[in-house]
Amino acid sequence: MCRWLAYSGSPVCLEDLLYKPQNSLVVQSKHSRMGAETTNGDGFGVGWYGRHTVPGIFRSTEPAWNDRNLRELSSQALSGRVFAHIRASTGSPVQQSNCHPFRRGEWLWMHNGLIRDFHLVKRDLVLEIDPELYPEIEGSTDSEVFFYLALSYGLAADPPAAVARAVGHIEETGRRHGVEHPIQMTVATTDGVTTWAFRYSSEGQSRSLFHSTDISTLREQYPDYPLLHGLSDDTRLVVSEPLGDLHGAWREVPESTCLTVRGGQMDIADFTPKAPRAAA
Amino acid sequence: MCRWLAYSGSPVCLEDLLYKPQNSLVVQSKHSRMGAETTNGDGFGVGWYGRHTVPGIFRSTEPAWNDRNLRELSSQALSGRVFAHIRASTGSPVQQSNCHPFRRGEWLWMHNGLIRDFHLVKRDLVLEIDPELYPEIEGSTDSEVFFYLALSYGLAADPPAAVARAVGHIEETGRRHGVEHPIQMTVATTDGVTTWAFRYSSEGQSRSLFHSTDISTLREQYPDYPLLHGLSDDTRLVVSEPLGDLHGAWREVPESTCLTVRGGQMDIADFTPKAPRAAA
Amino acid sequence: MCRWLAYSGSPVCLEDLLYKPQNSLVVQSKHSRMGAETTNGDGFGVGWYGRHTVPGIFRSTEPAWNDRNLRELSSQALSGRVFAHIRASTGSPVQQSNCHPFRRGEWLWMHNGLIRDFHLVKRDLVLEIDPELYPEIEGSTDSEVFFYLALSYGLAADPPAAVARAVGHIEETGRRHGVEHPIQMTVATTDGVTTWAFRYSSEGQSRSLFHSTDISTLREQYPDYPLLHGLSDDTRLVVSEPLGDLHGAWREVPESTCLTVRGGQMDIADFTPKAPRAAA
Amino acid sequence: MCRWLAYSGSPVCLEDLLYKPQNSLVVQSKHSRMGAETTNGDGFGVGWYGRHTVPGIFRSTEPAWNDRNLRELSSQALSGRVFAHIRASTGSPVQQSNCHPFRRGEWLWMHNGLIRDFHLVKRDLVLEIDPELYPEIEGSTDSEVFFYLALSYGLAADPPAAVARAVGHIEETGRRHGVEHPIQMTVATTDGVTTWAFRYSSEGQSRSLFHSTDISTLREQYPDYPLLHGLSDDTRLVVSEPLGDLHGAWREVPESTCLTVRGGQMDIADFTPKAPRAAA
Repeated sequence: MCRWLAYSGSPVCLEDLLYKPQNSLVVQSKHSRMGAETTNGDGFGVGWYGRHTVPGIFRSTEPAWNDRNLRELSSQALSGRVFAHIRASTGSPVQQSNCHPFRRGEWLWMHNGLIRDFHLVKRDLVLEIDPELYPEIEGSTDSEVFFYLALSYGLAADPPAAVARAVGHIEETGRRHGVEHPIQMTVATTDGVTTWAFRYSSEGQSRSLFHSTDISTLREQYPDYPLLHGLSDDTRLVVSEPLGDLHGAWREVPESTCLTVRGGQMDIADFTPKAPRAAA
Repeated sequence: MCRWLAYSGSPVCLEDLLYKPQNSLVVQSKHSRMGAETTNGDGFGVGWYGRHTVPGIFRSTEPAWNDRNLRELSSQALSGRVFAHIRASTGSPVQQSNCHPFRRGEWLWMHNGLIRDFHLVKRDLVLEIDPELYPEIEGSTDSEVFFYLALSYGLAADPPAAVARAVGHIEETGRRHGVEHPIQMTVATTDGVTTWAFRYSSEGQSRSLFHSTDISTLREQYPDYPLLHGLSDDTRLVVSEPLGDLHGAWREVPESTCLTVRGGQMDIADFTPKAPRAAA
Repeated sequence: MCRWLAYSGSPVCLEDLLYKPQNSLVVQSKHSRMGAETTNGDGFGVGWYGRHTVPGIFRSTEPAWNDRNLRELSSQALSGRVFAHIRASTGSPVQQSNCHPFRRGEWLWMHNGLIRDFHLVKRDLVLEIDPELYPEIEGSTDSEVFFYLALSYGLAADPPAAVARAVGHIEETGRRHGVEHPIQMTVATTDGVTTWAFRYSSEGQSRSLFHSTDISTLREQYPDYPLLHGLSDDTRLVVSEPLGDLHGAWREVPESTCLTVRGGQMDIADFTPKAPRAAA
Repeated sequence: MCRWLAYSGSPVCLEDLLYKPQNSLVVQSKHSRMGAETTNGDGFGVGWYGRHTVPGIFRSTEPAWNDRNLRELSSQALSGRVFAHIRASTGSPVQQSNCHPFRRGEWLWMHNGLIRDFHLVKRDLVLEIDPELYPEIEGSTDSEVFFYLALSYGLAADPPAAVARAVGHIEETGRRHGVEHPIQMTVATTDGVTTWAFRYSSEGQSRSLFHSTDISTLREQYPDYPLLHGLSDDTRLVVSEPLGDLHGAWREVPESTCLTVRGGQMDIADFTPKAPRAAA
């Protein structure tokens, strides 16, 4: 599996986000506490919004803990919206095109989990992808196919609905092939303005997911904690596992929900896959 | 485009094959004389038959001229059947899974050329691949899709017929999408016993392809030429461009033909793509 | 050998500098016109001054033409002072720590050329490096040893004098070991404010080096040329070979000189190595 | 730190050695049980004696668990003498030239542990290296400098004496710079015929080291254990940690000893560093 974080708020130096926290994502790449694997050494990626509406992405097959270019980039780049992901492959090759986040236009997508028995269902899933979009797939992961399914179902217009249809299709296809629990997922996607994060699994036991609590409250509670200063009140983090032990700083995202972050506003709504028949 | 060689004959040290000739494949990686590009620096691969019926493959995204592991392996490995390929990408990512030769079971496949406007036809071509085989595709090249098409059409049973059907399908699909000259190719494939090499292009102006001439005649003609000794009489090479300037050592493979090499025997037959309708 | 460029002036998107010119450095990585080698595919590096006095460096062993992360970084990063280098190794391994520019504190250093018979003189040169600095050497190139020699001789205080002493020591050491022409070089170094560029070789036939001419004059001369607009009048480029064919835009840096660029001011002074004895 | 194994005996397929054991070296690269770090993901290397007296080496900066070329090579190569090493860097860059085993001529060398405060002592250690050998150093690790010290002190003539002098010099140099415990080591070296393995540390608490016990006894004891068949009686393994849980199969190498393996014969002798003065 993998670990990821989605940041939005006041422009932050990527280094402060990826390296400085006690249990930072780079630390997690070698010593994850809550991941299905302790080592997430099969590549990593960062997507950050800067000068353009299209975000930059930096992806590498090296373990994040070793990558000097990641550290250099991180010390120079500032961004108010960052996606970062460390990978523990579930079988597909360790190559740049299989690293998250995936990008199309101004959209980013990253996934922790898997489509089970992907080799059984891959062809049927790929057939469902919009033929216009299909040739843009570059890698061989389940996660990228999942992204392109969501794009085909209208991610840009209504992300929760598109993801619900994509998951519904994946579950229906998996079950048709005899897969008991076709999907396990925490997913984050953004258009650069809003972030949507999903926690769901067919078996109802999803990978861990947390969001940060109100920064201003934390700041009052911990007046001596430097990391909290300099961040605007609307700063929000969604993470696979907490970046530190600050009591009260993190709250679990409930099972089968979609969390929407727009500025300082956070909404949690139920997430229910939409079966293909219902969609038609 | 790319450059390749297919060797069969007495067991040879890979180093003698890949590094020692005057215009060796490693030299060609930086300074190809006859290629569409002089630089073939977008990865390379070697397949060699050793202890098993399944050949080993060593593929890397580094330029061949820099790869120290290739040199080490080459100085240690002996093989009587070797495929080697240097890549000049026509657009798909430089990643190990896009390097030739491709392998399935005991079969190897490598390709110089391209399927034109591949993004237009990729989906239709992929749909034609046997659903059992489809999930094994790991990379994103036209060449690997071409291999899986040929496998789907019975490569293992009758290689020339399977390749003829694959090319027929590629041409028919390309033309349906308005592509004037859908394919440009020299292809080599082997099961470890026989090698089949194809030279063909929709426009009738195919990439260069040569085969070595009879070793025993050359040996008489050039008694002082050390490379020719130690090679058995049935040794044969098929190459994108000659490995040296020895007069009489190389003969061009004609346009639109399939060359079959089994032991010391070489046959050249016409190659005509088989349109899908005719195939049905 | 290698190719490089040193930019100073109004903040520029790295993409405009590295990719957009007709004969850009990325183009030169595959097809250099004036280099000792046409292919400079043995890694590359970029140093850029951004948020800190210490510049960022991004270095990779991949050919520049293939590196997707370089393209991503280049499309996002703006800088008013950029060093970029593409490498054609003269023997030392292709590894990140051998890629230019080298950095120490706020200083950058890059080199095209070589210290001849480096294996003969390496130990003597290394012994001359300040013992405090010595352990910071990470790679195995002649160019990095040259940098540390210059640092040891006071690069930070007086760059032309320090480089003159370093070259003097290299020539004296080489000759003592029977090397006829110990050094061939174009070198650029900067502290983030001023750039010094050197063109010199023991044999008096140095690698090519050019600087841009006055931007405002060019702008009047070519009112329709978009690249010239948006650049401030004090913008200056020093390059191994011109980035395009604009008549009058480039002037050769003379043999055995040191070019100093500070803001829009450019000075050319004679460069004479200082023999160690004279230095003592 | 790192993990390693040294094999000698009947020719074995590298795959059987590196992948098949329950706690194989490749397993240890992700989940070491006894290492200072559980993850040894900073590159790896294999040295094997094949067709020449000079062994082949295959080294890579990828984690061993991900490297497909290592798996391919391992399934094809047979050797009666193999060194393999997985690296957990103590600070020097992750680059091929820093991966073990190091090679010079027919000699291999690998090291688990470190020279403490290497930056303080590096220059003094390097000065002690034979000037003829010095330019061959390619990487930047303490382990390679240690190898070249041992070579300078006559490794080829008398390995235990040369290593004793090297360690004596390292300890004397470290202490002169105020380092309390200058060295921590398990080292293996071979000329292709004999293997010498050392376990020593200045503090007398050395990293774990084990050797296999008599294969023929084990075979009688475990008649149903397939791995033991096919191995000749003189097969011996020296390893950082046992490759499996077979009771009685592994015996700890004592502190401060040198283990010599020549054919089926194993000798353990005390190892005492030789201070430079005594050496003079």
